Formats: sequence, structure tokens, C-alpha cells
Amino acid sequence: MASNAFGNIFKMTTWGESHGKAIGVVIDGCPAGIEISDSDINAALAFRAPGRTPYTSPRSEIDQAEILSGVFEGKTTGTPISIIIPNKDADSSKYEPIKDLLRPGHANYTYLEKYGIFDYRGGGRSSARETACRVAAGAIAKKFLLHHGIELVAYIKQIGPIEATVHWDKIDLIRTHTHRSVVFCPDDTTTQAMTTLIEKAKHDGDSLGGIVEFVASAVPVGVGDPIYEKLEANLAHAMLSLPATKGFEIGSGFQSTTMSGSTHNDRFTNANGRIETQTNHAGGILGGISTGMPIVGRVAFKPTSSIMQPQETLTTTGKKAAFQLPTGSRHDPCVAIRAVPVVEAMLALVLTDALLLNRCIKI
Amino acid sequence: MASNAFGNIFKMTTWGESHGKAIGVVIDGCPAGIEISDSDINAALAFRAPGRTPYTSPRSEIDQAEILSGVFEGKTTGTPISIIIPNKDADSSKYEPIKDLLRPGHANYTYLEKYGIFDYRGGGRSSARETACRVAAGAIAKKFLLHHGIELVAYIKQIGPIEATVHWDKIDLIRTHTHRSVVFCPDDTTTQAMTTLIEKAKHDGDSLGGIVEFVASAVPVGVGDPIYEKLEANLAHAMLSLPATKGFEIGSGFQSTTMSGSTHNDRFTNANGRIETQTNHAGGILGGISTGMPIVGRVAFKPTSSIMQPQETLTTTGKKAAFQLPTGSRHDPCVAIRAVPVVEAMLALVLTDALLLNRCIKI
Amino acid sequence: MASNAFGNIFKMTTWGESHGKAIGVVIDGCPAGIEISDSDINAALAFRAPGRTPYTSPRSEIDQAEILSGVFEGKTTGTPISIIIPNKDADSSKYEPIKDLLRPGHANYTYLEKYGIFDYRGGGRSSARETACRVAAGAIAKKFLLHHGIELVAYIKQIGPIEATVHWDKIDLIRTHTHRSVVFCPDDTTTQAMTTLIEKAKHDGDSLGGIVEFVASAVPVGVGDPIYEKLEANLAHAMLSLPATKGFEIGSGFQSTTMSGSTHNDRFTNANGRIETQTNHAGGILGGISTGMPIVGRVAFKPTSSIMQPQETLTTTGKKAAFQLPTGSRHDPCVAIRAVPVVEAMLALVLTDALLLNRCIKI
Amino acid sequence: MASNAFGNIFKMTTWGESHGKAIGVVIDGCPAGIEISDSDINAALAFRAPGRTPYTSPRSEIDQAEILSGVFEGKTTGTPISIIIPNKDADSSKYEPIKDLLRPGHANYTYLEKYGIFDYRGGGRSSARETACRVAAGAIAKKFLLHHGIELVAYIKQIGPIEATVHWDKIDLIRTHTHRSVVFCPDDTTTQAMTTLIEKAKHDGDSLGGIVEFVASAVPVGVGDPIYEKLEANLAHAMLSLPATKGFEIGSGFQSTTMSGSTHNDRFTNANGRIETQTNHAGGILGGISTGMPIVGRVAFKPTSSIMQPQETLTTTGKKAAFQLPTGSRHDPCVAIRAVPVVEAMLALVLTDALLLNRCIKI
Repeated sequence: MASNAFGNIFKMTTWGESHGKAIGVVIDGCPAGIEISDSDINAALAFRAPGRTPYTSPRSEIDQAEILSGVFEGKTTGTPISIIIPNKDADSSKYEPIKDLLRPGHANYTYLEKYGIFDYRGGGRSSARETACRVAAGAIAKKFLLHHGIELVAYIKQIGPIEATVHWDKIDLIRTHTHRSVVFCPDDTTTQAMTTLIEKAKHDGDSLGGIVEFVASAVPVGVGDPIYEKLEANLAHAMLSLPATKGFEIGSGFQSTTMSGSTHNDRFTNANGRIETQTNHAGGILGGISTGMPIVGRVAFKPTSSIMQPQETLTTTGKKAAFQLPTGSRHDPCVAIRAVPVVEAMLALVLTDALLLNRCIKI
Repeated sequence: MASNAFGNIFKMTTWGESHGKAIGVVIDGCPAGIEISDSDINAALAFRAPGRTPYTSPRSEIDQAEILSGVFEGKTTGTPISIIIPNKDADSSKYEPIKDLLRPGHANYTYLEKYGIFDYRGGGRSSARETACRVAAGAIAKKFLLHHGIELVAYIKQIGPIEATVHWDKIDLIRTHTHRSVVFCPDDTTTQAMTTLIEKAKHDGDSLGGIVEFVASAVPVGVGDPIYEKLEANLAHAMLSLPATKGFEIGSGFQSTTMSGSTHNDRFTNANGRIETQTNHAGGILGGISTGMPIVGRVAFKPTSSIMQPQETLTTTGKKAAFQLPTGSRHDPCVAIRAVPVVEAMLALVLTDALLLNRCIKI
Repeated sequence: MASNAFGNIFKMTTWGESHGKAIGVVIDGCPAGIEISDSDINAALAFRAPGRTPYTSPRSEIDQAEILSGVFEGKTTGTPISIIIPNKDADSSKYEPIKDLLRPGHANYTYLEKYGIFDYRGGGRSSARETACRVAAGAIAKKFLLHHGIELVAYIKQIGPIEATVHWDKIDLIRTHTHRSVVFCPDDTTTQAMTTLIEKAKHDGDSLGGIVEFVASAVPVGVGDPIYEKLEANLAHAMLSLPATKGFEIGSGFQSTTMSGSTHNDRFTNANGRIETQTNHAGGILGGISTGMPIVGRVAFKPTSSIMQPQETLTTTGKKAAFQLPTGSRHDPCVAIRAVPVVEAMLALVLTDALLLNRCIKI
Repeated sequence: MASNAFGNIFKMTTWGESHGKAIGVVIDGCPAGIEISDSDINAALAFRAPGRTPYTSPRSEIDQAEILSGVFEGKTTGTPISIIIPNKDADSSKYEPIKDLLRPGHANYTYLEKYGIFDYRGGGRSSARETACRVAAGAIAKKFLLHHGIELVAYIKQIGPIEATVHWDKIDLIRTHTHRSVVFCPDDTTTQAMTTLIEKAKHDGDSLGGIVEFVASAVPVGVGDPIYEKLEANLAHAMLSLPATKGFEIGSGFQSTTMSGSTHNDRFTNANGRIETQTNHAGGILGGISTGMPIVGRVAFKPTSSIMQPQETLTTTGKKAAFQLPTGSRHDPCVAIRAVPVVEAMLALVLTDALLLNRCIKI
């Protein structure tokens, strides 16, 4: 069963371990005619590059993806697109001393119990490095969406207790501000406060959680499928498949639970001949199908599991042990930041798939 | 593309409209040897029956499901199990006056835009009535899980602003208290406060949101698949496929975003030879795979869209109109309550599928 | 894993045992806007009805299918279409004496070994009765194809050693002749010879094999997907999923193996501005994708396993035993005949799915 | 929709064009614990290497596959296995002159019509080179099967009109003879006659068709799934997904159509406590499920479409043109020969998948 694949029509399969020879993705079902190049992919990857800012892991690699198939004379051909991203910086020796320890908050225990074998180096398959492949595939999906006039953006909404003020009705503006923020936060004032908080966590060898918000605009009404392929269900699936995620909201989310129905129901209104709603508590989706309003949601990321403080743990055989990350280990004080382009990629993948499926629904 | 199907190995396909002849479910991939009967299914359905309590819709039906195939001499045979639930109480005439109006918070607008045709009677396919089929399928899944020693329960954690105190470590006790509560809340004191709140909403013709929490215990370590079939991703998908849901959390959920890593990381501990964690912020899952600790999560339900108050809206052609539910319409002041057994069913379906898949992972 | 489902976009799931309460099919992914009614389905079912001719089983049932969902005001709505066909004539007592015997050529041995439990009555799930559900679903697919100008037909090409002469370029004519033949053979002269052969087999309590040929015309160029969803691969899958099938051919089939490449290659030619091929050894498909020429193939059916002669066999525990079908058992001397409408249905299902998928291949 | 993927649990996705940078395969769902290395893969690839014998294409490449992920310390880990095979010998310039011509018997016309763009160099995605990826994946599947005691072999049964005599009950012997034959035919005498025939076709610039037979032994009873995942249906699908195939048979195949039921029915017999059948017309499968007898079938390959003789054709815009393969083009006079290891690989993939699925069928 394809546990490393995502999507129905536009389907990607990712592969690779953090410290293996390479990681990569194969996209099966990409429509023909999309202009794409290695540099498009690499530009997308640059956004999630570790070391981009002082507040993400200092891993020195700069990912250089290469398209191996499915593109001819600059355009997709409808055949599978294989993208490979070589692993450059992979000193695995430092993982030797901790290979028989259960890493707190990590998956080495569960992988080992499940499969009886685990490539522990750098987190192996469970490493967040896998998400680079999603960003690569997402870059193509975003080209497709843009061709159909759909734009999207993700950004930091909250780090620790600090929440940004964002008005998600102006995507272009949000994107500009987000991209210039060292923490991918479109609210310049908040960026400063977040930075201070992260500095402190870093100094303490500790970590912070955060919330990433996403918006898609100009999605036509009628996209998404009922019941088990509801747009919000597929988005929830997509986002909770990301490492370190603990929650998902669409539209009003958990806040809706304390609202009354008379307040929550979005009133339909005629905006110069176009049916809209006055509010958008629905987050752009009713019954799993897009309403034409912006699709808005949020993803909760736990504080990074890898911290520099010593922790008590067990060995794989159940004996008490002390756990200490080796000096010089990569350390993201807040994984939510690097997750921003990945959330955007997953949003693109879900919408692309839904748009393609939507072509099959009428005689 | 099977938008009405759920699951990989244990796969159900549901069908039927609220006011059609019947609704039903076909389960393909159910293992042979599970004891099941019509009365098992109907006992499960009774829990989500409308009119069970004063606080759910007074629809007079009592669902009578019938197993049509896949069971022989009291046991499943490995062939598809078809279950039909006839629609008994379906007076569609009252929907005539509102058939050309966009229903606030409902899906008739999006279905109509998508397909160009919509069976508007009683909400058609978008009606929550579809969830009865999930409960029917879930009853079989729960039998399978019980055979493997796994137990689960769902209950009301919050209605409006009122939150219940629940210690999810004693499933049997929770179940007993939940089943005797008119609002499916295991906390007897809170049940009283919630009841008062619902009475008021009912009197106002308004509605309330709520949070359903779920717990699964004794799930062995190693269940669930990495990356895109992570247990929490499939749970999020399952829960967000339910009508009226706006959010999902696993373990510490959104609360994790304000915690520090040193606090959030669950410490591994040896409990009489069994590896456990001292806390369970992970919600029983690391890297998408079960840890052996209880699997715990929450689902946010918006306040019921169907309210008895008049609302402004548009006709399907965009003209201003007043919307008023017909007198005598069914009306659940809080959909979260009836969703409790459905959340439990979805949990059962996800876990059953994961347990079966887990048999294929070693040579 | 959905072993009772077929199709990618237009997906059917069939259910039911021969002597259970009913059989049925759920179609998920049928486009909205197709006109369909119970009588359309029943007209299709009448063609595979046992007892239609003296040369098929005298089972007295006349199938009466009922559409339970997915159709509103005479048209499909895009939601799942559930069709039920009650089992009317199901005297299971005569199967009691043979329930512990391995039936030669039948699947009771393999089902029992696989699942440890088997509804042996009338062949249970392995009965050819399941194919009625395929015909029901195929009736809807044929409506879809006809809307797009595509026509198809299947007919008996060979029974035992007797081969019919058919020129598959005139579908209308073939259909007329096929439907008036008691053995579904469009060649009137051959029908007579086949009839004599079947009479003899019937008299001997023995059975005959046969070949069913199928043709689809006006399929546009470009339908079908490369590599693993090749049109011929999906057709082969579809046809070999039918009971009693032993072989499949597309175009020149096995005969191609003794031809030279210079003869076999179909020459492209310009027919009044339309690209065609002078011959059609390809059977209308190159590289898995339709060429615009008629799609032609054949399916081999073994002689019916149920014969009236006594046969040696074993009990389910491996002891020697004599096998004799009860007097009055249904008995088709040649299953290929009743398979004709089923082959046509499977052809319709494969093409419908391919046409829908073909909408997703360009930007 | 994943048209480049095959399998349910053990799922492979292949990618790459004949003259692109590389081709490759990702296997998702491979069980953990299988010993595998690059050299295992390359040993399997050597069997389908062009230029292995005088009777296959003289392309000079020797494929050097590299495993990029999913294997740790010599064993599979349960994570995706990515295998890359670089393209070494790819002089594409000779395809320039024929890029606007419809190639008789080839897929450039249909790909171009379907996608509006086609990488014509060396056949692009439609090239038989893709099958190298199947052989690579099949090598892993064969390791899995061998671990479970299952052995399989494929060989040339017929070239043109010349048929080999093979008794498929001794797999080891067949394999030895097959591997030493320049045409992969286990019958030494026939090999000689086939060689002469091929020499003549080569001299004439023409080509020959052929039949590949396959056998799997020691498959336990109960493997394979009913109805739409019947073992023979999946085998037919697998084989017809191969380039140049025109037909498929299981067991008695088309020959069964002229047999009587009393002859065709395999009699069950007790062979020292093991249930067997005296004959094996069923080809080891009843009702889609294995009987425990050898699984035997055949695949028909058309004569190679690429011939050295001049052929009439059209340009892509429909104008008359002469088609002539460039001097020095690769040319297999009989593609069936190189297909032998590929048929074996597809057999391995189908059986591996079925064995894994078979673990999910009981409580």
C-alpha cells in the first residue's frame, strides 16, 4: 500500500533517507504542457533551505534538484516527472553514539518496532528532509494553479504565544512581507518579537511551537469532492502528514465551537453579479466543495523535538540512559518556520488534484 | 475517483440520499471470521438515532439496518458486506419552498454549482444522514478491534464554552458515564451545565458548537504507516470528512504550540518491562506510527447550520431572499452530540485498516 | 484492498452471493447528467437472463433491478448510484448433499482454503450471477459512451470448433443479427450449426467452450493511458475477471505471432483528411492509446464446469467421493453465450473510465 | 491517476524516457528484511540486456542500476526503494529525420495526439527500455518469493510457427536450459531451428512474433483475490501492459474453447495427503485463487514493429511519406526474446502482491 504516495490524479511518490545517497520524488499524472525547469524547482527549495536565516538549522547544504524525466523542450509531457535531490552534507558518524537510544519525541522507536530495522542516520526516512520532495512537487503544482489563475501563500501566524495580525485578503502583499521576514511572518512588528523569543529558546537549548496559516485565492466554486474526498479532509490529511504537526483547522476552526450558529453562518451576498459570502467562517468550503471564497486554514506545529538540553530516556532494550544531542548537531529552535513553504506545497498539491478531478464530474 | 469510499484494505463505500429510498454501505476487504448480525449494527445505530435525547433532532425514524451479503452462518466470509438502511420518515414536500434558495452554511450551493443538478430534499447526499452508514461499518470494525484487544470511546469534551473534565485513562468508566449522559458527556456535573446551555439555544432558535474527544487504548506499538499514511493523517482525514467539522487535534494539539520542547517531549520510561512514556503529548503516535500509549485526539464541530431564526440569503440565481426553515423542521441545536458515535466509528475504521496493513510490512 | 471494485474514476463495487438476499452494485464516480431509469437497467439485464433461450440455464428468475440512489428527476447527480437486484429463485437445499465435496472446475475449494468459511449455496460469491451487476453498471456506461458517439457490441465468434464469419466494420448490422440469434451469433448460418452442437452437448450432459468477440467504434484517438493503464491491459484485466475465462486477445492476438513485421504493421493512410490505418492488426490501440480505428478483441471461455455427468472428486478433507449435480440443477451447456452481454458491459466500463481520465492530461 | 504504477501493496512506479538522463523505479510497500544489493539487480538486468545474443538489438549499453534508498546494511527497511538506471548510449540525432513521421506499429502518433507533445527520441516513454525498471523491481520480488519457497521461470515457447516442446513440471531444469539458449528456449533442438528463422528475418530486414510461457511453482493454495483482483486478471493486466503484446492465456487458454467440459475439468486427487488435480487445465487458478498446482500461462508478442525495410506512412500532418529506419538503428528481429525476463518479472510482481494481500483476509 502506497504509504509514500500522495494524490489521486496528480500523484507524487517520495523516497529517500536523510543520510542516504539522495532523496527524490516521482510525479505521476502531471498534465502535459506545464513549463518547468530545474531552476524553478531549486528556487522553491531555496525557501525551505536550512540555514536561510539564523533561526533555522545551520546545515550547510544547498539543495540542487535535477529533473530526470517527464520534461521535454521545457514542458511537461504527461509522463512521470522524476526529480532527484542528492544528499551533500551527511556526516553520519555522530549518530553512532545515540543509535541504540530512544530519541524523545522522535520516531526511531516506532520505526524500529514496526520494521525491525531502521536507518537511524539523521532520522532516516522519518527526517523532515523528506519534505524537500514535497516542495519540489509543489513547485510544479503551483505552476499549474497559476495557469488557472489560482494563487496561494502560507506564513507564520504564531510562534509560542506570539500571534501575528494578518488580513488574508491581499495575497500579493502577504507574500512580499512573508518572504522578507526571517521567520516567514508577514507582520513586520511581530517578526521582531518572534525573533527575540527564538533567540532565547536557542540560548536555552530549548525549542518553540508555532502555527502556520495558509490561503488560496481565486479557487473557482465547485472544486473538491463530497464525503471522503472533501477538500478540507484532504487538506487535513496533507497537513497532518507533515512531521511535527499536532492540529489542523479550516476557516473558523476550533474557535467555531464557541460561536452561535446565527453568527457563524456566512451570509450569501451578491457582489456585482458574483455570489459571495459576507464572512468566511467556512474557510472557503461548504460540504467539501469550494465556495469561491478564499480557502483559509491553519496547521499547528509542536516545539522541535531535537533540543540541546540533556534528556532522560531508555535504550532500545529498555534500560535507563541519558540522551544528549552531539555538539554541533543541527538544531531548528522552531520547526514551524521551515514548514511554511512545505505547507504551501501541500496546499498546492491538494488543489491541483481537486481541479483535475473536477473535470470528470459531468457527462 | 472514489470520493464516497474510505480505507485501503478495509474499504467502505457509502451511498444514498437523505430522502431517497434508502442509504447504505458496502464494505470490501473485511476479514473473514468476524461474528456480526443485524442487531449488532442496529445497536450501534441506536446511539446516533435522532430523538434519542431532547437535545437532538426529533426525527421519528428508528433505523433498521439489514445485512444483505458477506455474512454466512453468523460470520463474515471475506466477501463484500452490503448493509442497507431504508429511509422511513421522508416528507420532502416541506423542502419545496426553499429549493431555490442558498441555504446558509449548507452545501446546496456548492453541489449545484459543481454538478448542475442536486437532490435538495433533506440535504440529499450532503445530509448528515450519510454518517449512519459509517456507524454501521464502524460496528464491524469495532468487533475486529475488540478481537485484538483494542478498545475505543468518543465523548463530548466541550459544548460552547463549557469544557468537561475527563481523565482518558479509564476507558470502561468513561464509556459507562458517556452512555448515560443525555449529551454523551462522561462528566456528570458538566452534563447538567451543557443541558442548560442547549435548552437556551433551542429556545432562541439558535445553535452551539462543540468538541468531541476520542481515545483508543491497547493499540500495539508499530501500527500506522510512515509519511502519507501516518495514523494522525488518516485520522485527520477521517474526522474532517464528517459534516460540520472545522478542526482536528492529536495529543497536545494546538496547545502544543505554546509549550517548550523540553516540556513537550514525552520521556520514555520502563513500566515493569514495558516501554511507555511518562506523559502523552504525542497522543500515542510518533512519526505516524503508534507508540503503544493511548491514541487521543479531538474534533471541532461548528454550531449547527440549520437554525430556526430567519436569515438573509440569495436565490440560486443571485437574487436577495429571506430564508426560514419550515415549522416542524428537524433541528439539532448541537450537531457535535450526535457526532459522538460517528467519531468513534471513524476511529475504528482507521485503526482496523492500519492493523491490517501492518501485516504486510515484514518478509 | 478493494477486490470487488473495478475502475479508477467510474468505479463500481459489486456485492452479493448467488443465494443470498440480493446482489447489487454501487457506482462511485459516475458523471452527472446521464439519463437513466430502472427500465434501462432491466432491459440490459434481460439480455443475460438465464432461460432466455433453450441453450442457457432454465433458472426461472427475471431480474428486477432497482436504482436506490444517485438519480434525481431521471438523471444521474454525480453521487453514488446504488442498484439492487433481489434474488428470487433460491432453493438452496439441493446444495446440501454436495457442500462437503470439491466441485471440479469450481472455486469452492479455493475459497474455503482461503477464507476458512464459504457460502456454498449456488456458488455463493463465485457464482456467475455476480456478472448481472456488471451488466447493470455497464448499461449506465453505455449511455455515457453513446452520448459521446461511441458504440459497441459483443457477440459469439466461436463455439467449440465452429467459427462464425463476421465483418466487424458494421456495428449496427452486427447488433441486429446478434440480438435475434439464440446464441448471440451475428452469422445466421453459423447459428444453426452451433445450435446443433449445443443440443448434442446438452443431451450428453456435457459442455462446450467458446470465444466472444467485441468491437467498439468511433473511439477518438488519444484515449487510454500509457504503461500500466494501457487500454489493452485494462481490457485484459476486465475480461479475465469474468468467470470461466482462459484467454484474451487484442487485434491480431495470438495469430500475430506467426506473422512478419512487414505484414503486421498497419500502414497509416489519409482517408479524406482523417488519419487511419489500412489494416487494423493493432486492434485500434498503439502503445496503450486508441488510434481512432475500431477497438477489437476476443475472450476465450472454457467449457462450463457444471456438467450433468458423474465425476470423481474428493471431499473437503481429501477423501475420495463421487460428484453428481442434483437432478434439475441449472445447466448452461455453453457459458460463453450468456457472457456476451457481460463482455459488452466490461468493454463499456473500461472505455468510460478511460474517456474520463483523458480529461486530466493537459494543462 | 497513476498510469505508471503497478501493484496494490508491493507497488512500483516507473519513470524515464529512452533517451533521457536515466530511467528508474520506486518500489513503495516492499516488506522489510529482504537481502538485496546493486549486483542482484544488475544480474537480473543482464538477462534482458540488448546485445546479449546475436538475435537481440546491438545497443552497446550495459545497464548499471544503483539503489538510492530503502536498503540499509544490505536489507530492505520497509521504506521506498528507489533504483536508478542511467542512460549511457543515447545518440538521439538519428531520430531527427523521422520525428515528424508516423512510425508504423509505434506509439508516437497516439502519444502526440493525446498529450500534444512527445519526446520522440528513441521512442521516449513508449520505448521497451521502460521494461528494464520492471526487471529491477522484479528482482526484489523474486527474492521475496524465494524466501517463501516459490520459484518461477519464463521462456520462449514459440517463435513464428516453430513451437518448443516443454514439460513445465521441472522448473530447475527449464531454467538451466533456458539460460544457456541464445533465444531463451529450454528446448535445445528447437533453439537451433528458431535461430535459423531469426537469421533469415534479420537478413530480410523483417521481424518475427513469438510466445513466452511462464510457470510458477509451489504457490500455496488460497493466494489471489476474488472477482476483480483474480490472479489471472492481474496476470493478464501485467502481461498486456508490456509493449508489443497481443494476447494472454492462462492454463488451457484458447485451446479450452474446443474442449468438452468433461475433459477440461481437472479431477481432484489425493497425492499422499496433499490435494492436487490430475490435469492442470486451470493453470493453477480456480475462481481467481491459486489451487496449489503450478501457475502456467502464455503471452503473445507481435513481430517487432521496427523493421529495416522501407514502409509507406504519413507525416504528423497527414501527408504521404516514406519511412526508413536510419542505418545502424538498433533492431530486434524478435522482441519476444528480450521479453522473457520481463514476463518473469511481471509474474513475480503479481505473485508478491497477492501473497502480501493474502495476509489480510482473516480476523
